[in-house]
Amino acid sequence: MPSDLTNNIPDIVIGRLPIYLRALNRLASEGREITSSHELGERLGISSAQIRKDLSHFGGFGKQGTGYQISYLQEKLRQVLHVNREWQIALVGAGDLGTAIANYRGFGDRGFHIACVFDASPDKIGQEVGGFTVQPMEELEATIRAHGITLAMVAIPAAHAQAVADQLIAAGVRGILNYAPINLNVPEDVRVQYIDPVVHLQRMTFYIAEE
Amino acid sequence: MPSDLTNNIPDIVIGRLPIYLRALNRLASEGREITSSHELGERLGISSAQIRKDLSHFGGFGKQGTGYQISYLQEKLRQVLHVNREWQIALVGAGDLGTAIANYRGFGDRGFHIACVFDASPDKIGQEVGGFTVQPMEELEATIRAHGITLAMVAIPAAHAQAVADQLIAAGVRGILNYAPINLNVPEDVRVQYIDPVVHLQRMTFYIAEE
Repeated sequence: MPSDLTNNIPDIVIGRLPIYLRALNRLASEGREITSSHELGERLGISSAQIRKDLSHFGGFGKQGTGYQISYLQEKLRQVLHVNREWQIALVGAGDLGTAIANYRGFGDRGFHIACVFDASPDKIGQEVGGFTVQPMEELEATIRAHGITLAMVAIPAAHAQAVADQLIAAGVRGILNYAPINLNVPEDVRVQYIDPVVHLQRMTFYIAEE
Repeated sequence: MPSDLTNNIPDIVIGRLPIYLRALNRLASEGREITSSHELGERLGISSAQIRKDLSHFGGFGKQGTGYQISYLQEKLRQVLHVNREWQIALVGAGDLGTAIANYRGFGDRGFHIACVFDASPDKIGQEVGGFTVQPMEELEATIRAHGITLAMVAIPAAHAQAVADQLIAAGVRGILNYAPINLNVPEDVRVQYIDPVVHLQRMTFYIAEE
């Protein structure tokens, strides 16, 4: 639950914080210690005024003229986003996309850890995917409960996504990252985020000049 | 280029149109012919007033009380988004993620078609991925120019993404869907969209209650 400090922050601001954190991680990996809203803005294509305003929701992180201390701002953002701990994730779907997700090395250093992989297909169950043995859907609820998992990624065809979401929620999941190209109906206390490449492509073709 | 009719539409509205189109495609596949802003709103978790307002930017699509004709609204949205034609896409990256993208069957019926796949790794070049023979980066510019390709997807490690984006843009690409977890610097007439699962996960953990 957001703390008193952070419960009136617009969702659009929350959506930008992971982008700021990612840029700060990058700066830190380049050996940098101090940055500014101006530099962050240049890197992200966001105005420096917007960045200062967004960060001011969480208290002052920097002094005018002296810039932000990167390590401090990283820590603060991790705290606000609750990723100063490790989250376990259940992955449903062990096809091409699920396999790519299970093999992705970019989760660990940003607060996430895949804990189990499920699939409905007899061809997948029992196979090794990204270091995990794929489990049957019948084991989903018990496994998720046993691990106390509250986050899931869904990488299966659209036709089955709602039924799987219902199963996940019944097992205690409260956040779903859905790769299936379909909107999910979920209770009010469950968050869903969507990844659909076609939606992003169509958002660009609107702007791209045609002959 | 957006037509006179559509050049003052806020970007956030444009971002919702692909979601509306996806929901309409789904309704059509269920055999439905008529829908309403109320029904769409229920399916998408968006208020019906918002949907009516968004669609009113492009002229009236429905009459109060009689609902929207799904096939007409699909066609109109495809027109507005410029996906009433087929766009060719260059894919850079033939690793796990690139392979999943190349194999994905959800592009074709929504206006997109992968035309070529590139990778820098000698292990990948010449291999078959999703029905394509992976080409070396040295062939990128000539291939993209020969096909007149203006859209690309980048599925490679962050460290190389900016250099590849620069190459793509030099070859004529005007829209990049970037899966690498890094912000790209591009000229003003180039659009970039980002897919980073960690950004979506962190946006949910903010809200999810902790013990």
